[in-house]
Amino acid sequence: MNYTSESIEKAIEIFSSFPSIGKKTAQRLTYYLLRQNDSFAEKMSKVIIDLKQNVRFCSICFNYTERDPCPICSSTKRDRTIICVVEEPNDVISIEKTNDFYGLYHVLHGVMNPLEGISQDDIKIMELISRLNEVEEVIFALNPSVEGELTTHYIAKLIRPFGVKISRIASGVPMGSSLEFSDDATIARALEGRIAI
Amino acid sequence: MNYTSESIEKAIEIFSSFPSIGKKTAQRLTYYLLRQNDSFAEKMSKVIIDLKQNVRFCSICFNYTERDPCPICSSTKRDRTIICVVEEPNDVISIEKTNDFYGLYHVLHGVMNPLEGISQDDIKIMELISRLNEVEEVIFALNPSVEGELTTHYIAKLIRPFGVKISRIASGVPMGSSLEFSDDATIARALEGRIAI
Repeated sequence: MNYTSESIEKAIEIFSSFPSIGKKTAQRLTYYLLRQNDSFAEKMSKVIIDLKQNVRFCSICFNYTERDPCPICSSTKRDRTIICVVEEPNDVISIEKTNDFYGLYHVLHGVMNPLEGISQDDIKIMELISRLNEVEEVIFALNPSVEGELTTHYIAKLIRPFGVKISRIASGVPMGSSLEFSDDATIARALEGRIAI
Repeated sequence: MNYTSESIEKAIEIFSSFPSIGKKTAQRLTYYLLRQNDSFAEKMSKVIIDLKQNVRFCSICFNYTERDPCPICSSTKRDRTIICVVEEPNDVISIEKTNDFYGLYHVLHGVMNPLEGISQDDIKIMELISRLNEVEEVIFALNPSVEGELTTHYIAKLIRPFGVKISRIASGVPMGSSLEFSDDATIARALEGRIAI
């Protein structure tokens, strides 16, 4: 295809390397960028460099942060006896948005996946275990996939000797959805997790 | 919302300023960027700066280009007697992709829009007229909107004295679509533009 400019082709290529950005969207983003003034491009360029330079992992929970420990781990308002275990940093955002959880987090950075060769040593399991001293409950909030279940059960077995309460978030029919459009596994899980009313 | 990092917030903000990128996608892009190595961020940053620095308008057709005149205008393989008039540079890509047009282009950079105060002087109409010397046909390929129609008719009237053939691309029911899902205006236009078989 003839974009009449190598710079345009390179920009489209790099945008389309992002997840959920196809060639057509990448093209739209590039042409949008071309329509902005130079200062926008300079600002964006700086934001991207700053992002990689300033953001590191919190040495306690392994969430992204600019200062270590992160604002959540160093907050005096959080309940330090509960840890919610998640797969990725963006899962922390999803839970924080609910304003329903006031404990701490632990980001595993993945789940065990034997088929892809990701073992228990490749994710932050030992780092979680080293935090269990003052902890009373560990809540698993991994994605409800086979790998998420496997990882939840593996870690649960490892930490049971510490005498902490272990739970996992409920799976079931999403709010606003209907039984008709839910798959068998979801309905089975919803039945299994039924709550007395 | 607590992103635990100002750099992350800034990146999400700049990504979501792009068209068709919502907050959630911007967040996904930012976290993707964080997972890449430093050289990716540096490369992306450079690509963005290069894009704005290297790309200018072709002084003939006003498409984006790195060298003036652009590869299409300076190609010896294109038919210089036909000009296809489009609204924006990305429309050139859409037509080039078909491999069905071998003439030259002229990018208007907008259409006349009285409601938004965009007049005939704000788009590249005079620049088109100055190109008509050796031209035999002008094909209008503006978007089939009220403003596109207005602009097509306005320019057609202006250039008729030059004795060039004037046409516009067909409007009608898209290939692979069905009458059932086409709106009235599209069906009316398809009927009006019927072709003897």
